[in-house]
Amino acid sequence: MAVELKGLTKRNDNYSQWYNELVVKADLAEQSAVRGCMVIKPYGYAIWEKMQRQLDDMFKETGVQNAYFPLLIPKSFLSREAEHVKGFAKECAVVTHYRLKSSDDGQSVVVDPEAKLEEELIIRPTSETIIWNTYRNWIHSYRDLPLLINQWANVFRWEMRTRLFLRTAEFLWQEGHTAHATSKEAEEEAVRMLNIYGEFAEKYMAVPVIKGVKSANERFAGALNTYTIEGMMQDGKALQCGTSHFLGQNFAKAFDVQFIDKENKLDYVWATSWGVSTRLMGALIMTHSDDNGLVLPPKLAPIQVVIVPIYKKEEQLQQIGEKVAGIVSGLKALGISVKYDDADNKRPGFKFADYELKGVPVRLVMGARDLENNTVEVMRRDTLEKETVSCDGIVDYVRNLLDDIQNNIYQKALDYRKQKTIEVNSYDEFKEKIEEGGFLLCHWDGTTETELKIKEDTKATIRCIPIDGDETPGVDMVTGKPSARRVIFARAY
Amino acid sequence: MAVELKGLTKRNDNYSQWYNELVVKADLAEQSAVRGCMVIKPYGYAIWEKMQRQLDDMFKETGVQNAYFPLLIPKSFLSREAEHVKGFAKECAVVTHYRLKSSDDGQSVVVDPEAKLEEELIIRPTSETIIWNTYRNWIHSYRDLPLLINQWANVFRWEMRTRLFLRTAEFLWQEGHTAHATSKEAEEEAVRMLNIYGEFAEKYMAVPVIKGVKSANERFAGALNTYTIEGMMQDGKALQCGTSHFLGQNFAKAFDVQFIDKENKLDYVWATSWGVSTRLMGALIMTHSDDNGLVLPPKLAPIQVVIVPIYKKEEQLQQIGEKVAGIVSGLKALGISVKYDDADNKRPGFKFADYELKGVPVRLVMGARDLENNTVEVMRRDTLEKETVSCDGIVDYVRNLLDDIQNNIYQKALDYRKQKTIEVNSYDEFKEKIEEGGFLLCHWDGTTETELKIKEDTKATIRCIPIDGDETPGVDMVTGKPSARRVIFARAY
Repeated sequence: MAVELKGLTKRNDNYSQWYNELVVKADLAEQSAVRGCMVIKPYGYAIWEKMQRQLDDMFKETGVQNAYFPLLIPKSFLSREAEHVKGFAKECAVVTHYRLKSSDDGQSVVVDPEAKLEEELIIRPTSETIIWNTYRNWIHSYRDLPLLINQWANVFRWEMRTRLFLRTAEFLWQEGHTAHATSKEAEEEAVRMLNIYGEFAEKYMAVPVIKGVKSANERFAGALNTYTIEGMMQDGKALQCGTSHFLGQNFAKAFDVQFIDKENKLDYVWATSWGVSTRLMGALIMTHSDDNGLVLPPKLAPIQVVIVPIYKKEEQLQQIGEKVAGIVSGLKALGISVKYDDADNKRPGFKFADYELKGVPVRLVMGARDLENNTVEVMRRDTLEKETVSCDGIVDYVRNLLDDIQNNIYQKALDYRKQKTIEVNSYDEFKEKIEEGGFLLCHWDGTTETELKIKEDTKATIRCIPIDGDETPGVDMVTGKPSARRVIFARAY
Repeated sequence: MAVELKGLTKRNDNYSQWYNELVVKADLAEQSAVRGCMVIKPYGYAIWEKMQRQLDDMFKETGVQNAYFPLLIPKSFLSREAEHVKGFAKECAVVTHYRLKSSDDGQSVVVDPEAKLEEELIIRPTSETIIWNTYRNWIHSYRDLPLLINQWANVFRWEMRTRLFLRTAEFLWQEGHTAHATSKEAEEEAVRMLNIYGEFAEKYMAVPVIKGVKSANERFAGALNTYTIEGMMQDGKALQCGTSHFLGQNFAKAFDVQFIDKENKLDYVWATSWGVSTRLMGALIMTHSDDNGLVLPPKLAPIQVVIVPIYKKEEQLQQIGEKVAGIVSGLKALGISVKYDDADNKRPGFKFADYELKGVPVRLVMGARDLENNTVEVMRRDTLEKETVSCDGIVDYVRNLLDDIQNNIYQKALDYRKQKTIEVNSYDEFKEKIEEGGFLLCHWDGTTETELKIKEDTKATIRCIPIDGDETPGVDMVTGKPSARRVIFARAY
């Protein structure tokens, strides 16, 4: 498999094409034979597994348990919650038959018309309906609450325009579905999960995010309130990285889930749902990577350190191998994943380009002179800076360097976001600035009408009403009506 | 949620009903609203997660990497491999449309006839076809081989008669798909994975298994050779626990996957596939559990030790709590999962029955007298034996006890299998003995005809030709024709 770095489009030339090429060239994912469905390749999947493991630990820490619910949902379930069906019925994969048979010529298989289902089944676009239908049998009393359940699953939404990781027909995700005795507890749960998503994005992905609330128009279909974390990509566009919904009693009412409260009264159960998906892979790639390829945060990199020997004689390789063995075992003892690449069928230059493309955070190179001097050349992927370092204490040096890289790429992304976040006070200025990308902090009158007009005119949407934002009132930049506070507008993925 | 132990049918009264009830009462799984699809409940899923984690580590240890391929497969792919389509086309879920719309009365949603797919898509019953279609682009040279890939996924086979875990329309599994340069390497890979399955079943699940080869009639559709591990349940019936297939060049030819070998010649790639599923949960439950509920092997138990206080005064509870804290932290330090259940809304007797039902391997009870004497009552779930033990050294005691239980339930299952495995030399004896269950070691002439006659007459099938079995030749018990060696017949799940 050749390194096709030369072909990588530069970000400034065409950001979108750069992304599409990078995902494929770095062996993260590719299109499959099925329209809109991707194949997640081993290197991409290894990153996703690291994300999963970390998130799963964080969920479980709060008392959440995993379970698994069916892939298929009876069609009628979708209609139970009025808003939900509007949001999800349009774009779903419908199972109508349960058998194939041989064609008359015996050369292929055809759908057996006699095997038609009485009621069609939908491949889950999200699982609120089937889960709340199940919860009806699990919840009877306040003693059964809270019920804190998550599932890791594949879901399917028939998307017409797809992009690897960002928008695919099938994607992998986790969906949490919790049930509570009071409105307050459910709201708190939704916020708790928003905070976990925020912490995960910032500490592990090194992606700074704004936490906020969605406008009514951008809410999840069936929610009373949708919380979101929004990241800014290197082209200034927003990417919604995760959402957490306060569902009120909507699904409990739709599926008749009632419980006896402490005062012995019957009430409907309060709900939340929350999810992040393989879309996070897109956020990770687009936030940090550069014209040489991926830049991965050390905490999620499948290979954190690669070591490449440079030698002329077999004897040198052996000496380097012996020297490197100590470094490898020292790094492994600290839980650092390290690969010693002494494959003799690829030249060092090829290896360098390949590991840069793959975003391996730290590269060590050892040659004949290093052997003599008891040194090693260290390169950090984020800045591409090289340094020659003594082998004494190299393990601690690398550990600190990994922390440094993790912090540095976060800070870099944060600085970029700060620089591209501006207050805008007139619609004329808005129309001009939105072309440059970034987050525009604007006053808005709170109506869907104004929001839709702005979207129509400029393709910008309200990303969120930031939780930690400035709460000074003002006037809407379009209508001049009163505005409670500034919200974030941006063009988004 | 009440403990419904009283209602549990006894194994001797109705083994099948005992199993069905136990799965539900122990909170492992239940039927969903979708015919044949199960909901895996948190306690059941926690066991499955432990299985997954262990198997995943064992696969990766051999160089296997995880990836993810699409849920949906174009219908035409199934027809490419002649045997494969015969095996899987009959029982599949067919996606024919990609959109719903509001019904005319606006009260529900209906399939939009205009959103009919040009080619129907099948929910994967297994992924050989889509994966080998992908491998065509990944494999060009011997340098790309071996390719060792696994995926954890849901699959769907439309089963008419379903039972929780044992046979469900949707189930969770892993499927490994490897590609090799030579027939020999592929065969070795298939055997390597069989051995991993065997090791996992015996060391972790404590389920003794026979490793063997399937007869032609029982082979995977499209395989040249199917290896299997077969367990014996407590009713003497066989359960196929995992299979590993040598696929030859069948799928490479069907999907045109060729490579340049070291001699610069073009050849088709050699393949294996191998899988285990949530069916393993069924094997686990049926091998060890008893009339009081689950018996779990300590290595897969979500809770390995439970501690229950018995007290009259609040003050005693506090003293017990302080004493127990040291035991809890000592156990946790050894990586043992422990739960201290001091909930005051359930009586101790209720808790005892509940944890027995759930199969928690070790129960510690501490009461007022134990406090005085510096002792604790230890009960092991496998034998229900109780002992009073000093708190000094209790942590080591429990650790050893967990190992003991793991070994004991394995040995018990092995003894049972030995006792129920007999050589049978005449067909009359066979017909009599097969009614008692167990593995019957018989001579067979190697023909599918004889195998099918026996199945027709007795419902028994050849479970496998055991790899480590006796290789003495003889004569077929039905036809009198020469037999190369004895094979294992049994009735099976």
